[in-house]
Amino acid sequence: MKKEIKFSLVFRDMWQSAGKYVPRVDQLVKVAPAIVEMGCFARVETNGGGFEQVNLLFGENPNKAVRAWTKPFHEAGIQTHMLDRALNGLRMSPVPADVRKLFYKVKKVQGTDITRTFCGLNDTRNIIPSIAYAKEAGMISQCSLCITHSPIHTVEYYTNMALELIKAGADEICIKDMAGIGRPVSLGKIVANIKAAHPEIPIQYHSHAGPGFNMASILEVCEAGCDYIDVGMEPLSWGTGHADLLSVQAMLKDAGFQVPEVNMEAYMKVRALIQEFMDDFLGLYISPKNRLMNSLLIGPGLPGGMMGSLMADLESNLESINKYKAKRNLPFMTQDQLLIKLFNEVAYVWPRVGYPPLVTPFSQYVKNLAMMNVIAMEKGKERWGMIADDIWDMLLGKAGKLPGTLAPELIEKAEREGRKFFTGNPQDNYPDALDKYRKMMKENKWDLGEDDEELFEYAMHPAQYEAYKSGKAKEDFLADVEKRKAELNKSPLDDAKPKTLTVQVDGQAYRVTVAYGDIDLPADATAKVEAPVGEGQDVPAPLEGKFFLTKNAQETPVKVGDKVKKGDLLCYIEAMKTYNAIRADFDGTITAICATPGDTVSEDDVLMKIG
Amino acid sequence: MKKEIKFSLVFRDMWQSAGKYVPRVDQLVKVAPAIVEMGCFARVETNGGGFEQVNLLFGENPNKAVRAWTKPFHEAGIQTHMLDRALNGLRMSPVPADVRKLFYKVKKVQGTDITRTFCGLNDTRNIIPSIAYAKEAGMISQCSLCITHSPIHTVEYYTNMALELIKAGADEICIKDMAGIGRPVSLGKIVANIKAAHPEIPIQYHSHAGPGFNMASILEVCEAGCDYIDVGMEPLSWGTGHADLLSVQAMLKDAGFQVPEVNMEAYMKVRALIQEFMDDFLGLYISPKNRLMNSLLIGPGLPGGMMGSLMADLESNLESINKYKAKRNLPFMTQDQLLIKLFNEVAYVWPRVGYPPLVTPFSQYVKNLAMMNVIAMEKGKERWGMIADDIWDMLLGKAGKLPGTLAPELIEKAEREGRKFFTGNPQDNYPDALDKYRKMMKENKWDLGEDDEELFEYAMHPAQYEAYKSGKAKEDFLADVEKRKAELNKSPLDDAKPKTLTVQVDGQAYRVTVAYGDIDLPADATAKVEAPVGEGQDVPAPLEGKFFLTKNAQETPVKVGDKVKKGDLLCYIEAMKTYNAIRADFDGTITAICATPGDTVSEDDVLMKIG
Repeated sequence: MKKEIKFSLVFRDMWQSAGKYVPRVDQLVKVAPAIVEMGCFARVETNGGGFEQVNLLFGENPNKAVRAWTKPFHEAGIQTHMLDRALNGLRMSPVPADVRKLFYKVKKVQGTDITRTFCGLNDTRNIIPSIAYAKEAGMISQCSLCITHSPIHTVEYYTNMALELIKAGADEICIKDMAGIGRPVSLGKIVANIKAAHPEIPIQYHSHAGPGFNMASILEVCEAGCDYIDVGMEPLSWGTGHADLLSVQAMLKDAGFQVPEVNMEAYMKVRALIQEFMDDFLGLYISPKNRLMNSLLIGPGLPGGMMGSLMADLESNLESINKYKAKRNLPFMTQDQLLIKLFNEVAYVWPRVGYPPLVTPFSQYVKNLAMMNVIAMEKGKERWGMIADDIWDMLLGKAGKLPGTLAPELIEKAEREGRKFFTGNPQDNYPDALDKYRKMMKENKWDLGEDDEELFEYAMHPAQYEAYKSGKAKEDFLADVEKRKAELNKSPLDDAKPKTLTVQVDGQAYRVTVAYGDIDLPADATAKVEAPVGEGQDVPAPLEGKFFLTKNAQETPVKVGDKVKKGDLLCYIEAMKTYNAIRADFDGTITAICATPGDTVSEDDVLMKIG
Repeated sequence: MKKEIKFSLVFRDMWQSAGKYVPRVDQLVKVAPAIVEMGCFARVETNGGGFEQVNLLFGENPNKAVRAWTKPFHEAGIQTHMLDRALNGLRMSPVPADVRKLFYKVKKVQGTDITRTFCGLNDTRNIIPSIAYAKEAGMISQCSLCITHSPIHTVEYYTNMALELIKAGADEICIKDMAGIGRPVSLGKIVANIKAAHPEIPIQYHSHAGPGFNMASILEVCEAGCDYIDVGMEPLSWGTGHADLLSVQAMLKDAGFQVPEVNMEAYMKVRALIQEFMDDFLGLYISPKNRLMNSLLIGPGLPGGMMGSLMADLESNLESINKYKAKRNLPFMTQDQLLIKLFNEVAYVWPRVGYPPLVTPFSQYVKNLAMMNVIAMEKGKERWGMIADDIWDMLLGKAGKLPGTLAPELIEKAEREGRKFFTGNPQDNYPDALDKYRKMMKENKWDLGEDDEELFEYAMHPAQYEAYKSGKAKEDFLADVEKRKAELNKSPLDDAKPKTLTVQVDGQAYRVTVAYGDIDLPADATAKVEAPVGEGQDVPAPLEGKFFLTKNAQETPVKVGDKVKKGDLLCYIEAMKTYNAIRADFDGTITAICATPGDTVSEDDVLMKIG
């Protein structure tokens, strides 16, 4: 008999890799006893990742949810674990050090035993402080290797990274194969190397099923000494989700490992409850495509979960390219030709941007850069014409050090545009902030919460916390659920209602657009029509996409009459989920805003005029 | 560098594991050059299995199709292979020996190099004659081990079976993991054992993705010395299909094996053509559920592809059970409770019926027996009350020897019912038949075809060949395609048309059933109403299901006035795709047929009366 392999049910990730939301606390508390009854889990992933934020989004208190949901597992002797993003804590942007420290204290008292810390760039400077914070708080610090497949992400690279993290105090190592792209034999070697140096350090393998490698990887890492395997279960296993517990258990049992038995009656109970939650509201946010496996992106190295958005991007960009070709009597491109060009361009771009691991958001960045380059070249322009600010931040090292080296052509471009590289510790740019939030809460007469948990939550997700406190979050969420349900239950007859009509009045034809029900007219509808078209130079759209004056509610939009200097932000073109900033090329006054926010503009459409 | 692993694209099986049909010859000839261009296949599965029959079904000549479709691969130096069912040839019932011999001769001259022979029961008496026939014809004889997971289907069992087949002359061995249920480590051991004894014998691993084991199995069998791996490709990979070429290639490359590179431009071409064929008519026969993975049936050992039909069976049987419980004020059963009972009953039934490998049709047999037993026991009756004739044939050894031993309770039941066990060679029951078909063709003035290929096709699929010759097959197929397309394109408004109405005429209410379009009234509509209800004893339905007087067009239905003896076949109840024969319990004359063929009857409904 070989060694014992323990299982963790990644209940939080099961939902978040299928769709946007996680179950509500009342649902979690309902399913927890049946999960315990299954009798085969040493660990359950309860929270972290998007869990806390999602609770705010649907107007629930994440602190109450975590406390209630971890309790039944503790009583049953099952460890709970969570995911955190190191420097980014539980959000997508950097978090001050004092908030990071409080974070682990709060999660420990709320009942989370283990924190799985990762940095999307594998920059250990972002991870190492979390080890000390977590251990000070009494948590088990599990540090992650984010798996990607590139010539520099070798067995040696990951082995060294693990050894560095262990030296820095990591209690455990997670092989975080979040796109399921890790190759089985190489993953086995990484685990074997870590175990050879540190047989006492527990290793947990986390994977997604997408490209089909992960069952083989699970077998390889177990043969190499892995201790814990993350699993999912029906009806949310496979596809963008995880390998199913039943398959993993049967495979490892046959391979001679000691594995727990599964109480099938309890499995069926949990399975039925998951389905019940999906039928309630969670299924409204799950695309059926996420249940499919996908191998096509293995070549370029992109996560299979990107397939849906990639095909949508491809379609709209193909249209734009062929419009260009039609004007010039050039032969049209097919979707497959564009896809092949995109794959080849990813192969060109990825090494040159320093091989960031191909996971969110870096996989989108690399794909977008490649797509922009292909479009530019198809239209007779140069590569690298358009690089969004978020992508520049990554290239300049603001989020951490890139694993590889930036190509000279990009370094030169940065210098030409006066962009500064950042080589310091990213944390240094974000000063402590708890005092500020404490003060704001006092002013609002908001309670800091048991163990300061409300203070922590406010400091981690300020905008969402405010929307939760005001009740707006719940209201918006319920409205969105209703809207989606209505869409689902829409009578087919609704499609028969005309959306545009042509009417004749006294022999004059009018084109009428019809809306049904109570519709608020856009506030600027009149303003827009009457806005004078000013004198001055055109600001043309450098690419096709949606026009926006601001990226979020925190920004103030420019308006006619504003004075702008060269380099000032004017507006954005959103293409492929990236906001491309449009800046002024010269000093002047905005004399007209010619496009409507939210509308799609074509390349060279006039966005504004500056006089 | 480890050894070279070669790939086979199982193009035929890709389609047949997704749906009913395969592409037409014009489509096959169109895609073949792009498959060649992919540059990575040593072999392609071109025909066999359902290929020939399906060609007849849509009114095409399978002989012409095989010749045209294998040609481009030969010219490119790619071997072609096919699947055959040993005793059952290319159909689901036994084939005379002279037809089997002609079969291999015809396929060889048509361009198929390798034949993969399997017996669903793993009875080598059914396989061994095919080795000699295939080799005499100049084909490579590849013999299969049908993989199932049971206590008697051990590594030793499969090793011995392979050694026996090699001793009998098999040129190659196929590990045919047709439900994808084989456990990776055990499969590796089987391959290692065969290679240890016969390093010169090529081994090909065939698998399906369903329960998720097969990528790990591919890695294990390659490490153990396997030579060829069967792969599929998008958009038909995974789910009930095969592992995708791209994933398999990448995994084996990382593991250090020599593997061919894939021409991605050609891959994209083939992928686009497959999609084109699906959009033409093939997609009409593919359930989207077949693209999903499924682990739930791993416990009972059933193939995941059965999940759809199993859930449908479960639903209708649950209704019948709960009707029974309602009448007796018993608590209702839930679907999950029934599923768990079914799983437990499969575990009871399977060893007792001698562990037939759980693949079509034996997996259906075992599932149906288990379901019948559960229903019977829920209704206070005994196990084994209803066993269909086809299942009896399996139990009695008519199709081959069962791998395990039959339980005493079933042997006693067979003896009680006067059923005879068959221990001879199944082939002996089917005398040579080519002369008969040659004569019939002469009478019909039909050509025997190049290399007697038309004679062979007629003798292999007599009914379908006649329908093909008469043009009825093509007509029926085109009508079915039109019907499915119409269903797909049906206006949602069609659902708004009433199916029943209540009308009042002179104050009298009438219930009216409405049909739209030209509808032929059933021929027996009047007859049925006027049929006198005779005197005599009731023949009650022993189970719920669809009532039929005959199972196929070859049988003659009984009618009122027919004299019947005890044991004579009266009619059938079709439940879970199995025809359960209803026989007379005593001698007499049929005085009434009380049910309508095609209608569903409940348990104890009167089917006929015998006076």
